[in-house]
Amino acid sequence: MFESARLPQKMDKKTFRKLEPELREALLSAQLEVIEKKPFSTIIVVDGLDGAGKGEAVARLYGWMDARHLICNAYGDPMDEARMRPRLWRFWRDLPAKGQTAVVFGSWYQKALRDRIYDKIDDDSFEHELGKIRRFEEMLANEGVLLLKFWFMLPREDQERRLKKIDKKHAARHVLADWAALKNHEKASEVGEKIIVETSRGHAPWFVIPSQDPEFRDAALAQTLAAAMRLKLEDGEAASVAAPPAVGGLTRQTAVDAIDLTAKLKKSDYEKKRTDLQDRLSSISDTKAFSKKGLILVFQGNDAAGKGGAIRRVIRPLDPRIYKVHPISAPTDEEKARPYLWRFWRRVPRQGHIAIFDRSWYERVLVERVEGFAGHDDWLRAYNEINEFEEELTNSDYIVCKFWLAISAEEQLRRFKAREEIAYKQHKITDEDWRNRLKWDQYAVAAGDMVDRTSTHFAPWTLVSSEDKRHARVEVLQTICDRLETEL
Amino acid sequence: MFESARLPQKMDKKTFRKLEPELREALLSAQLEVIEKKPFSTIIVVDGLDGAGKGEAVARLYGWMDARHLICNAYGDPMDEARMRPRLWRFWRDLPAKGQTAVVFGSWYQKALRDRIYDKIDDDSFEHELGKIRRFEEMLANEGVLLLKFWFMLPREDQERRLKKIDKKHAARHVLADWAALKNHEKASEVGEKIIVETSRGHAPWFVIPSQDPEFRDAALAQTLAAAMRLKLEDGEAASVAAPPAVGGLTRQTAVDAIDLTAKLKKSDYEKKRTDLQDRLSSISDTKAFSKKGLILVFQGNDAAGKGGAIRRVIRPLDPRIYKVHPISAPTDEEKARPYLWRFWRRVPRQGHIAIFDRSWYERVLVERVEGFAGHDDWLRAYNEINEFEEELTNSDYIVCKFWLAISAEEQLRRFKAREEIAYKQHKITDEDWRNRLKWDQYAVAAGDMVDRTSTHFAPWTLVSSEDKRHARVEVLQTICDRLETEL
Repeated sequence: MFESARLPQKMDKKTFRKLEPELREALLSAQLEVIEKKPFSTIIVVDGLDGAGKGEAVARLYGWMDARHLICNAYGDPMDEARMRPRLWRFWRDLPAKGQTAVVFGSWYQKALRDRIYDKIDDDSFEHELGKIRRFEEMLANEGVLLLKFWFMLPREDQERRLKKIDKKHAARHVLADWAALKNHEKASEVGEKIIVETSRGHAPWFVIPSQDPEFRDAALAQTLAAAMRLKLEDGEAASVAAPPAVGGLTRQTAVDAIDLTAKLKKSDYEKKRTDLQDRLSSISDTKAFSKKGLILVFQGNDAAGKGGAIRRVIRPLDPRIYKVHPISAPTDEEKARPYLWRFWRRVPRQGHIAIFDRSWYERVLVERVEGFAGHDDWLRAYNEINEFEEELTNSDYIVCKFWLAISAEEQLRRFKAREEIAYKQHKITDEDWRNRLKWDQYAVAAGDMVDRTSTHFAPWTLVSSEDKRHARVEVLQTICDRLETEL
Repeated sequence: MFESARLPQKMDKKTFRKLEPELREALLSAQLEVIEKKPFSTIIVVDGLDGAGKGEAVARLYGWMDARHLICNAYGDPMDEARMRPRLWRFWRDLPAKGQTAVVFGSWYQKALRDRIYDKIDDDSFEHELGKIRRFEEMLANEGVLLLKFWFMLPREDQERRLKKIDKKHAARHVLADWAALKNHEKASEVGEKIIVETSRGHAPWFVIPSQDPEFRDAALAQTLAAAMRLKLEDGEAASVAAPPAVGGLTRQTAVDAIDLTAKLKKSDYEKKRTDLQDRLSSISDTKAFSKKGLILVFQGNDAAGKGGAIRRVIRPLDPRIYKVHPISAPTDEEKARPYLWRFWRRVPRQGHIAIFDRSWYERVLVERVEGFAGHDDWLRAYNEINEFEEELTNSDYIVCKFWLAISAEEQLRRFKAREEIAYKQHKITDEDWRNRLKWDQYAVAAGDMVDRTSTHFAPWTLVSSEDKRHARVEVLQTICDRLETEL
């Protein structure tokens, strides 16, 4: 999840200084209107990795907003009064009134988060806790609270650097950096991902804040907060705030933007590698272990990126009785009459079998989003629904591999033209392809958000440069073989 | 839960025959409109106790509706095709198309239900399963499915009678009644209650169908189904169907209606019993075990039923440092600015202490419902929120006792008049009391629904006749003492 937050998102100081007055004005004007009209209260949950600068970011908010109506509640271990009451009591006690904004450090997620990181509770208990939290937050939202949750994310090496700095700065004051946090970086990230997948809802969204660069971090926080308050003000009674999957407005590089398109493979190397991998795949698919699993391959990518060619290289070594390729185009009438995941559920293979999707349920958050075939709320909730679908598959012994095949706009143009010129390829290029191409940027944003929101540890996306088709085909085969060997 | 479904709800055959044409017309006209316009699909989940006559009731629906568009899906143990796929697969496969109605026997609840009854899974795993079901149903509702769930309820003795009948009827055909079901009657009812509490949502409500009497049962099912389809047809796009807490339109006796008001206690008996019970309460409250628990007493009832007097008898033997009485009237400005449960959370006592609520959070589903201070959706979701609040308290070592003090309308009139005549009691009677009295029937329905929806095994309602105050006071004291002795 949130691969883009792991990229070095940066904002230079000059840009920040230029943006600052605008951010302050947006924040303050929204806050003042809320203070005056008191239509709702705002709760800002702050969580994420230690050392990400959560305190600094909130301190900046204090400088920008009307601090008298911005309450900060920090919860550590419960004191006597709270220990002698139900766990949620202290959070209830401190709920802000309409018109007020409360920042919550050490929220209702902390206990479950820590207990899970340190293996004090198992997965079922953890899910049970998340279920209770979901209902608590649903109640808050129904009561008109604007609930925003921010997860501050930091790659491991940046976390280490920041903790060293804290140690140095506070050495005299006996405030020690939490080095244990670094040791648990992986586990904390994984548990955090689970929390975000399971508790991000339209009415209580999580926003991931890339925190390597303080200016980018603080601008992202301020901008999201201002946008959400403004949206809620304008919706009047609407209980739910739409969750912009990316931090709106800031130019943020997505994981899809960051794909290195220069990788190439010589023809001779390619032949050798491809044949080896196909042999490997063939023998894996013949094992007893494989017969007890299901394999689901998803191919998405830019138009003309070579999905079909890659799929052909995957199926060549396989027994045709054990796989099925499903090219996905517009839904049939029968499919349109049912929930959108129905057409994919009915194609879930038996164990020991392989389903290959040339385009898939991800069209919901790509073409249906961009072309407006799905409403805003509908494609937004699809991220959760898709994650739950793939989790259900994983829990039922399926292996889900997802490939995004990427090419540059120039390479696409070259391939489109070539298709028009070669008679037997003309059927592969339509007016629609040319129309989609005009929306290149919108599709890029949608693809970036998709990877951010649906690359999970149980069903990760593999981003493949397909600028050189040989490279792409080998990487796809390699990924499948590696994944199968790890999981079987 | 659903105390009213345990009462002998009956409909004589003559009434049924008179109602039948109306029910058929309502059902069929709604169904035909759905078939023609195809605005949504309808899924009817049928569950509940074995022997309750689920099959018979659905058979009657078939007779009344257009059977060609009414699909029946019955799931037993999964067959090969399904066993080799994720558990939800077969339910997905069979989802009805828009315009169709599907009846589901042996739904997605069955596995979790049975596993929990037979202790194959613990509470955490059970909650985890219910959480997944909640999200599955939320998705269905978001995709425009009308999802209605019916729980067929039967008291133990009726279940036994029905099973005997089945045995007799089918002896020659080797269809045996499921006698194990009877053995597990209590456990099945408890697990069923949990399912209903946790998965009844505005968009996927459970309706409890009292099933002792076949005519009442079938009329209740048909009427609810027709009403829900009609409602959804008229709301157009609205994804949620309001859940009528009682079966609308049918005259159903509630548990509150059924309170026996004749109980009386002689003055001399009263003095003795009261003193004994107060002594018992005093010593219990002095124990070490008690100091580790919190006690929460809730008093609701008809106006002038004698809540204050009963509370005074409870506190008399107690150390004033360990209890607090909270008379609840209109919320303050501070309270109005926050979620409605806030004013009660802030009054949750420390462990070893007692909070006594003279009126409580239940006003949400009583006066706020009847007087329209809370919107329809708001008081409807309050049943869930209140159950979750009380479950949280129970899980945090609190004991929650709830009393409904009932008097007849005539007795109330006598007391109102007496209050007006006695100078020092005049402050206890206001114009509002007289106004509320005019809505006696509406308050009775609200109280009945409240008991049906919030009497849980962890926080049951005690329904007390207060027609004779002495009887009421002793019963309140007795219930508290018994409960404390059981739980400490």
